[in-house]
Amino acid sequence: MAYSKITSEILQQITAIVGSDYVIDGCDNLEKYSHDETEDLCYFPEVVVMPRTAEEISQLLILCNKYLIPVTPRGAGTGLSGGALSVLGGLLISMERFNQILNIDERNLQATVEPGVITEVFMDAVAEKGLFYPVDPASKGSCFIGGNVAHGSGGPRVVKYGTIREYILNLQVVLPSGEIIWTGANTLKYASGYNLTQLMIGSEGTLGIVTKIVTKLIPHPTVDVLMLAPFPSNESACAAVSEIFIAGVVPSAVEFMERKCIEWVIRYSGVIFDLKYDDSAFLLIEVDGTDKEVIFSECEKINRVLEKFGCKDVLFADTAEHKANLWKIRRTIGESVKINSAYKKEDMVVPRAELPALVKGIKEIGNKFGFDSVCFGHAGDGNLHLNIVKGSMSDEHWENELHKGIYKIFELTASLGGTISGEHGIGLVQKEFMPIKYTDVHFALWKGIKQVFDKNNILNPEKIF
Amino acid sequence: MAYSKITSEILQQITAIVGSDYVIDGCDNLEKYSHDETEDLCYFPEVVVMPRTAEEISQLLILCNKYLIPVTPRGAGTGLSGGALSVLGGLLISMERFNQILNIDERNLQATVEPGVITEVFMDAVAEKGLFYPVDPASKGSCFIGGNVAHGSGGPRVVKYGTIREYILNLQVVLPSGEIIWTGANTLKYASGYNLTQLMIGSEGTLGIVTKIVTKLIPHPTVDVLMLAPFPSNESACAAVSEIFIAGVVPSAVEFMERKCIEWVIRYSGVIFDLKYDDSAFLLIEVDGTDKEVIFSECEKINRVLEKFGCKDVLFADTAEHKANLWKIRRTIGESVKINSAYKKEDMVVPRAELPALVKGIKEIGNKFGFDSVCFGHAGDGNLHLNIVKGSMSDEHWENELHKGIYKIFELTASLGGTISGEHGIGLVQKEFMPIKYTDVHFALWKGIKQVFDKNNILNPEKIF
Repeated sequence: MAYSKITSEILQQITAIVGSDYVIDGCDNLEKYSHDETEDLCYFPEVVVMPRTAEEISQLLILCNKYLIPVTPRGAGTGLSGGALSVLGGLLISMERFNQILNIDERNLQATVEPGVITEVFMDAVAEKGLFYPVDPASKGSCFIGGNVAHGSGGPRVVKYGTIREYILNLQVVLPSGEIIWTGANTLKYASGYNLTQLMIGSEGTLGIVTKIVTKLIPHPTVDVLMLAPFPSNESACAAVSEIFIAGVVPSAVEFMERKCIEWVIRYSGVIFDLKYDDSAFLLIEVDGTDKEVIFSECEKINRVLEKFGCKDVLFADTAEHKANLWKIRRTIGESVKINSAYKKEDMVVPRAELPALVKGIKEIGNKFGFDSVCFGHAGDGNLHLNIVKGSMSDEHWENELHKGIYKIFELTASLGGTISGEHGIGLVQKEFMPIKYTDVHFALWKGIKQVFDKNNILNPEKIF
Repeated sequence: MAYSKITSEILQQITAIVGSDYVIDGCDNLEKYSHDETEDLCYFPEVVVMPRTAEEISQLLILCNKYLIPVTPRGAGTGLSGGALSVLGGLLISMERFNQILNIDERNLQATVEPGVITEVFMDAVAEKGLFYPVDPASKGSCFIGGNVAHGSGGPRVVKYGTIREYILNLQVVLPSGEIIWTGANTLKYASGYNLTQLMIGSEGTLGIVTKIVTKLIPHPTVDVLMLAPFPSNESACAAVSEIFIAGVVPSAVEFMERKCIEWVIRYSGVIFDLKYDDSAFLLIEVDGTDKEVIFSECEKINRVLEKFGCKDVLFADTAEHKANLWKIRRTIGESVKINSAYKKEDMVVPRAELPALVKGIKEIGNKFGFDSVCFGHAGDGNLHLNIVKGSMSDEHWENELHKGIYKIFELTASLGGTISGEHGIGLVQKEFMPIKYTDVHFALWKGIKQVFDKNNILNPEKIF
């Protein structure tokens, strides 16, 4: 595809659509939009626009289709797979002005929200009305809900409440052709044609630009207990996870953390925490519901499982502050690793009970290929986040050898019944690993679908495949 | 598309693939496969085959693609939208020999099952291991789980547990080209490419033929309470529904039934039940969980809501037999209406709190267009099933006027934020109403996707659009 550059004439037309206050060009001001949270990748768009309406986006896409300008939609730029990077330059559409919660419908337990609303802002707004929107990625304080839709986001509470797929009822989308559609209906289910809502979720901004989101809400749990459980080894911590569910309990979060995660959060992010244990691995387990007695009895069941795997001394968070601190540890791991060293972040998911084999295998592969890693993640879903730390590794080793090791890790993931990404998406950086799991037939279907939506391939090109 | 007939030469090749024991031709033996549960529609396939393996299906589809033979995949034939009817003749592929539960993985709380397993058989098999597969359409005793996947099925427990979309992790699918793929991974979530699993669910056998299904399982609830609540009017019963959720309770089922439903079940299906109430409408409400005290307290909350809407005397089912009887009433409504009279069955879904307006509007439209109707359904999801009864209506009125009334009902549904089908699918009989809700842009996307999967349009042609 021969794309065009944005000429001054095209820029004029872009400016006429969104207004000159909402157009940025010139390198100095574009820096903010040249990277997301993916390693140290940097790609400058030619022009950034901040439209306010679906109609403006429609006009922009019609224009870009006419001149064959690559378009990159962007949320808060917190992505971890490079999905919001303007790899081919072109126009970056920042959704930051789509920042309104349009409606919280307490009769139907639904909300309509714009994609540029920060996830936590939305969660807090519905919580004020006693309602729960449980999709809270680690970056909930800064990510946009639109980005969550684009990546099919999860977060710690998937294990009980499901991913964003289970909360998105309907989407208003601007297609690359400029057409504006609603993908489905504002209903809890429907069976009317191929499910375009589900197809849009996780399509990483390659099929259309979401401009309104209708979500399901549920009654807010009224009680929760949070505990930190120490284990003698990564394997014992991971092995305990699936046994909790087998014992009949579904916690609202089961997060795995290697010891290093907590140590580094304390050291590099200044979180204050007395890590009195000398254990190797930890599970952060939350149980929620509406009844204290039930939750205590579930905690007892969980405790009996934990003991079987060598956990001796569970720490219960007894105040809101204490809970917030434990969650802060979990949520700042990525940031702390980044402060410590250059790193690569990989995201993989396996059937839950295969986690011990995955973690063990990753460490063995690390030993063989000479890299150190930090493992953590949503163990209840079998979703592991792996940060590979550059530390003192030579640039040459980092660029060449490491890649072979990562390849082996994804081969292991696939052999355990898992796949490349649990929730970060494929974007730019995981693309190369996709053929480990998927065949030419998958790629042909994906590319065929892309072609149906975006015949000139203007929307977020070079992503996923 | 100029399809071919199945010549004796092609029949020979078909027979060579599946074996002569598993080929049926000749009108007498094909009757069973000429209809499903949709009104009195009847379409004969030319030939029926009963393959046993994905490889056999692959060869059949390659053959049918070569000769341009229309192919209709069929589960148990319990569908209510004509999706399994061989409208253009051709080859009907019955999945009845794919009837094995291949694996119940208690470590990962997953199962692998063939599409021809009866839903209830599967539910019982996992329940024996303390596990729960909650997707139980009214026809669970006879429908196949593969048909449930094809229609994105729901059932009474969607309201708490979600539709089949939330339980299908991975699908083995034979594409029309004959390629056999797995759509995703055996994991609780993933974010790797457009979600083909979700795209297949609800595609009504038009994109591929599912040959293996990997489902999520959850711990089985250990306690449940079932109650029948009478109301003075349809509207008051429906209005109570959304208030239950607003009160913070999520029951495991909230089913609405007009009085007539129960009366007809007693009269036509011989279910023995003492309908001591003289009320007009009923809610069948189930609450489940793991703790009796919690459930009782939830029932109290529900009761307080019900009272506000004029419900005076709730009947609690106090034995397993009593519960089974109440569920039998709910599950045999469709059958009873059918015994009573020729009828048309419509399926629609609206945001939950719009149900009173929908039911009221349906009755008004019925008065205007001269038809009688029976309303029931999964009120907790806003999903209404509407059976329009022919009774003494003239054939001419039935064929002509009625259609205008149904059209009005779907217009009302759409105007309330709802859509054409909640869970029965579009199939053959709801197709004509789709333009009420969806635009040319939707149809172009759907047809484009169909073309990507099935370039010669051999698989279940004439369905959905």
